[in-house]
Amino acid sequence: MERVIVNDVGPRDGLQNDPATVSPADRAGLIRDLVAAGVPAVEAVSFVSPKAVPKMAGAAEVIAALDLDAADFSALIPNRKGYELAREAGVRSVAVVLSATDTMNRKNINMDLDTTVRVCSEILEQASRDGVNGRAYVSVALGCPYEGDVPEDRIRDLTRTMFDAGATEVIVADTIGAGNPAQVKSLFSRLVPDFGADRLSAHFHDTRALALANAWQALECGIRKFDASIGGLGGCPFAPGAAGNLATEDLVSLLHQAGFDTGIDLDALLAVVDRVRELVGHPVGGRALAWLHNHRAAAAAAG
Amino acid sequence: MERVIVNDVGPRDGLQNDPATVSPADRAGLIRDLVAAGVPAVEAVSFVSPKAVPKMAGAAEVIAALDLDAADFSALIPNRKGYELAREAGVRSVAVVLSATDTMNRKNINMDLDTTVRVCSEILEQASRDGVNGRAYVSVALGCPYEGDVPEDRIRDLTRTMFDAGATEVIVADTIGAGNPAQVKSLFSRLVPDFGADRLSAHFHDTRALALANAWQALECGIRKFDASIGGLGGCPFAPGAAGNLATEDLVSLLHQAGFDTGIDLDALLAVVDRVRELVGHPVGGRALAWLHNHRAAAAAAG
Repeated sequence: MERVIVNDVGPRDGLQNDPATVSPADRAGLIRDLVAAGVPAVEAVSFVSPKAVPKMAGAAEVIAALDLDAADFSALIPNRKGYELAREAGVRSVAVVLSATDTMNRKNINMDLDTTVRVCSEILEQASRDGVNGRAYVSVALGCPYEGDVPEDRIRDLTRTMFDAGATEVIVADTIGAGNPAQVKSLFSRLVPDFGADRLSAHFHDTRALALANAWQALECGIRKFDASIGGLGGCPFAPGAAGNLATEDLVSLLHQAGFDTGIDLDALLAVVDRVRELVGHPVGGRALAWLHNHRAAAAAAG
Repeated sequence: MERVIVNDVGPRDGLQNDPATVSPADRAGLIRDLVAAGVPAVEAVSFVSPKAVPKMAGAAEVIAALDLDAADFSALIPNRKGYELAREAGVRSVAVVLSATDTMNRKNINMDLDTTVRVCSEILEQASRDGVNGRAYVSVALGCPYEGDVPEDRIRDLTRTMFDAGATEVIVADTIGAGNPAQVKSLFSRLVPDFGADRLSAHFHDTRALALANAWQALECGIRKFDASIGGLGGCPFAPGAAGNLATEDLVSLLHQAGFDTGIDLDALLAVVDRVRELVGHPVGGRALAWLHNHRAAAAAAG
């Protein structure tokens, strides 16, 4: 069976955008639970100013509570200062975020596109020199809430710029869930021949109920690494209408049914969804959750 | 833009399996609403014994209340008696149901597979002689609740038998929503070269949240005709765990986003979903419904 890598972004992307505030200790506990369920990669923290994003305070504390050999833990890095803090904390993988449109960068981080490209490139170059694994998100790649459609040429050019700066991987992100599988096919059919499927990853939102169809199409294009968020936690507060990350349990369910190996124990993952619900104090869970629970109960009853 | 035909099975498959009982007059009204929204084909009625299926009583009354030139209205036909009644009512398209496993046929209609094949073939042959459009469902094609996996060879052989008997179209039905897009790809990649995409249709259920991914994969295999059910009405009472037909609004939303033409007015379709909710007295609606409503409201506000 072919392996697909699932990177759970729930502890960062998910919880940053959830109404609840979860303590660093509980976030570290959630991350350990995910790893115990077999999740090989987790977006664990963001080294962002706690004044700007109070929910993500205590990033170093979270990292210190993890066994860094247990999985691929990444930290989101908004700027040079964040990079230095991540380095001090011992983080081995960092990710920068480059929105594909000028307006989105201004709204998200108050920088224009050119400035964001420069800042991201500098961080990736430094990471490369430091032996740190540097990833780059190209976000709003399938549609921007402010500018609408984004030209594929621009996504390709930004992807190339990030690789040239030393990125080990580019994550093509449908940040607001605007994409459909025809778009996914068109875009990845251009990117994969240029950059190789093994250096690309995909990040989908389920806003329009198309996250699984989009993930399937990306698989068909050769993509074997995906972001997903436990329980479907998250969205993007700076991107109107971006509710609902692709739920990890939905993606893993699709992958296992379609014959891919993820290394993840789906029963253990469902137990993590239950704990996430307790942590955030409101219902969570992907679109396949009810079926997964029924299926698990039926399997248990059948012995 | 390429045309995709959507056949709404809500008035029959949907309402037959809904807790509510809807009068023939209201069922005819729903069908007329669907046609007014641009839906080109509707599974309108079943000419089944009203003692066996009280919810479907009044099939002739429903047909009499329709303008048979307005769309392609089909009637489900369980047996020769049903065929004669459909003929008397003036129905121009009939559909027979052949489950792909022995156990499912016995549970569904108390006949073994060979007998069901014979009965379906005889009806299709008679329809062909009468100039009636005869379709055949090959059901539980992607998994049977009793026998599990169904060999692709058997689906292919049953499909051939139905065409040989005079079927104008075979609808490959994932009756319990057991299929995943890898299976869909494998099966349709075998059927399309043998029989032609233009004579095949696909029927999916959203039990595992994979109906849209499966529909997308079927589109990729060349299929251009799909069943769907307004508001996601339905399931199958004889097939445990078969909750949730693919919702028409979800499918149409995917198709329009992916650049296909359906002839359907999505705004009008959403209004039909609202009326279905009133008819059945409980919440209905596909997975994309909340987004579709928000999107429509935003578009209206923007003028």
